[in-house]
Amino acid sequence: MTPFDRLMHYQRQTEALGQVAGRLGWDQETVMPRGAAEQRGEETAAMESVLHARRSDPRIGEWLEAIDPAGLSEVGRAQIRLIRRSYERAVKVPADLAAEIARVTSLAQGIWAEARAAEDVAGFLPTLGRVVDLRRQEAAALAGSEGDLYDALLDDYEPGATGAALDQMFGELRPRLVALREAIMGAGHQPAALNHEFPEEGQLRLSRDLARSFGYDFNFGRIDKAVHPFSSGSGRDVRITTRTNPRDPFNCFYSTIHEVGHACYEQNIDPDYGLTPLGRGVSMGVHESQSRIYENQLGRSEAFCGFLYRRMAEEFGDFGVSDARAFYGAVNRVHAGYIRTEADEVHYNLHVLLRFDLEREMIAGRLAVGDLEEAWNSRFAADFGVAVDRPSNGCLQDVHWSVGLFGYFPTYTLGNVYAGCLYQALRAAVPDLDAGLGRGETGAATAWLAENLQRHGGLCEPRETIRRATGMEPGVEPLLAYLEAKFSALYGI
Amino acid sequence: MTPFDRLMHYQRQTEALGQVAGRLGWDQETVMPRGAAEQRGEETAAMESVLHARRSDPRIGEWLEAIDPAGLSEVGRAQIRLIRRSYERAVKVPADLAAEIARVTSLAQGIWAEARAAEDVAGFLPTLGRVVDLRRQEAAALAGSEGDLYDALLDDYEPGATGAALDQMFGELRPRLVALREAIMGAGHQPAALNHEFPEEGQLRLSRDLARSFGYDFNFGRIDKAVHPFSSGSGRDVRITTRTNPRDPFNCFYSTIHEVGHACYEQNIDPDYGLTPLGRGVSMGVHESQSRIYENQLGRSEAFCGFLYRRMAEEFGDFGVSDARAFYGAVNRVHAGYIRTEADEVHYNLHVLLRFDLEREMIAGRLAVGDLEEAWNSRFAADFGVAVDRPSNGCLQDVHWSVGLFGYFPTYTLGNVYAGCLYQALRAAVPDLDAGLGRGETGAATAWLAENLQRHGGLCEPRETIRRATGMEPGVEPLLAYLEAKFSALYGI
Repeated sequence: MTPFDRLMHYQRQTEALGQVAGRLGWDQETVMPRGAAEQRGEETAAMESVLHARRSDPRIGEWLEAIDPAGLSEVGRAQIRLIRRSYERAVKVPADLAAEIARVTSLAQGIWAEARAAEDVAGFLPTLGRVVDLRRQEAAALAGSEGDLYDALLDDYEPGATGAALDQMFGELRPRLVALREAIMGAGHQPAALNHEFPEEGQLRLSRDLARSFGYDFNFGRIDKAVHPFSSGSGRDVRITTRTNPRDPFNCFYSTIHEVGHACYEQNIDPDYGLTPLGRGVSMGVHESQSRIYENQLGRSEAFCGFLYRRMAEEFGDFGVSDARAFYGAVNRVHAGYIRTEADEVHYNLHVLLRFDLEREMIAGRLAVGDLEEAWNSRFAADFGVAVDRPSNGCLQDVHWSVGLFGYFPTYTLGNVYAGCLYQALRAAVPDLDAGLGRGETGAATAWLAENLQRHGGLCEPRETIRRATGMEPGVEPLLAYLEAKFSALYGI
Repeated sequence: MTPFDRLMHYQRQTEALGQVAGRLGWDQETVMPRGAAEQRGEETAAMESVLHARRSDPRIGEWLEAIDPAGLSEVGRAQIRLIRRSYERAVKVPADLAAEIARVTSLAQGIWAEARAAEDVAGFLPTLGRVVDLRRQEAAALAGSEGDLYDALLDDYEPGATGAALDQMFGELRPRLVALREAIMGAGHQPAALNHEFPEEGQLRLSRDLARSFGYDFNFGRIDKAVHPFSSGSGRDVRITTRTNPRDPFNCFYSTIHEVGHACYEQNIDPDYGLTPLGRGVSMGVHESQSRIYENQLGRSEAFCGFLYRRMAEEFGDFGVSDARAFYGAVNRVHAGYIRTEADEVHYNLHVLLRFDLEREMIAGRLAVGDLEEAWNSRFAADFGVAVDRPSNGCLQDVHWSVGLFGYFPTYTLGNVYAGCLYQALRAAVPDLDAGLGRGETGAATAWLAENLQRHGGLCEPRETIRRATGMEPGVEPLLAYLEAKFSALYGI
């Protein structure tokens, strides 16, 4: 065997073990008996320890040393690039620090949940301070003496992205989103929300139909209920979860479509890349572009809403919405709200931009955790026009920081930006898109995405992945144009 | 840290990983998407490879060398004894051979399933021959130049047992079981079987109630449907499966109670032993003693059948059985049959004894696989009084040999023998056992088993575990006395 073959053989086992660890997480959120949590913590830690040891195994360095990239195909070079990045990151972080981060963030999640329930920011701050401190240490180990701390963390979720570039991109988004929001809120006209009870059984049945409509392959996946919707796994076993609320079936339907977007990306990657670094979505941002374009540009389009209106009438009878136009308004209702995960398309990115700016300041050491709440509340008032009423509606609402996910938030908006670019290219490539969507057929759109983006997995860097799929340099204009056109029409502004 | 602490810390991670691997098996049999099988094979192999490397890690040998057992408690010495056995077995088997066995038996299972479906013994023989050959090589590596091949394999399932000792024990069982069987078959009187449809929903609801009645703790477990009933996991996450057949609810109820016996053993082990070698059932034979005493001596007793008769009437209405006595007869109906897993208490051990003798001959090299079918059929005719009609009812019925489980079968009957001893001691300790069972209350019995056997986990060797619980030297007489008394009364012989 050549060094390349040895490395790939070794890596294949690591990828398989990574899938096992991921499925352990799925199990925990869906089927694990309640009393098993403590034992599960040790099981998860043991898997992480095995994976960290494998990812930093010195043999990887030796094999990489012995491989001549010039002798490899494009695919082979891409594999080497991803393995090298993973290896270099793994060896830079001392094992003790990695273990300490795992230990502290595991405890921090429980402390955060308690603090949120008790509206107790002060009770959470010491823990948050410790998490920020540990992640800054990790960032310093990764960045070396020259690099930027935030960029070092960001790179784990969005290779190649930098805080400065995102800052510029988001700086173009923010004023126009604020202006759009204000125009909508001042329009005087508000579509009616749903006001009806929708039985769980019907919601779950319809959400499974929607998953199928969007191309989710149940032969390689399954849908279960969980507290939070998520997608889990790669290759031939990609599972999603959903949830139901009797008063709000859109929560179930659109979170299902969102997770189907993530899952289809994984399911549609070239099977030849299975259990290799190329066999996973290339970044969180590109992943989010798929979930968002499925959910919003396709699923919340007027054409698809027409289809969904008819399907819901079949499933639930008269549910008090007079026609397809009113239904489209209800689906896309813009409403002021404190909670990111419940936000509409207009507000959503404003939530993310707020978190991006604050977490970047915290990691840079320019914002002390003790000043976080005030910073959050004043920024929220500026961008959303309302005052935060309590911490669970403010800086305690998201789990991310408690588990140390600094650098993760901006990938949500980056995903929306990418989805805007992809949607523009998709409309050009599939001119009669709406006709299919009106019949509930997404095949033309999802086939285009599968062919031009999803199947390539990790072959190219994230921005290059979008560039190749769309033929354009990724930027904010398509997303803004889409949002402004859609919501101007809806609100008559 | 002392060498003992280091060893236990290392072992704890290995145990946690073993639990993860076990849960992967549970997932595969219950919730895995169909198309995931191939990828799952690689995931399972990767976990096995990690576990094998850990179990044979040279550091274990060094730590063991450095530990002075005299300085340890009884528990500490027992941990060391179990770790040493696992380590010595792991290092004796070459990694290549272990990998080849894993590879071949994984494929063999599919070949066996096809051969069984096609009634094609000849199509399975080359594979079986290869599996026998590989396991003989493994046995030779384990046994060294002096030891017995079959004993070396048996030791993995039932430490301390030998083929010769089992042969003597089974030699005492067989003639009296054959005589009992013949007397029953000649009795002229046969209890009626059920003849009714029992909806799945009611079966599953009642089987959950039965699980609770027998002390299964759903806080640390769950019940799902699967093709084959099994129990999986140790400590705080012990799951079982069941299945339903609309014409035969006893299949669901008694396989549930059987698996609950296995699961309660694991759930009731001293929590201080969690994620250590002591924190698992001590052997397959002792495990089976728990499942069998729950299922048979308790669950199929006249007293408990009286309770179950009333519960089934509540759940299913009139199902065509006139009274509790007739119901007791239906539950314990002795019927000639080809299939081990469907056998009654009288026939069951005759099935096992047949397999024990044949597999011992194969491993010894005295029975060629080409002669297996004839040997099976002639033995079956002698012990069961009927001729095997087709291979799926004969030597192709069980999966065990295809996956290399030589030495596993005898632990089923050893478990029955142990259950006989435990039941005799239990009756002496709990004189009013039947009164509770008649009300569906098994607490007195299961508390006695938990206190005297289950909580100790792997503290003592298997026979010593039974000896301590019962105060007697384990032997066949209690089982035979129980069976002869029960079935003589039922059949008026």
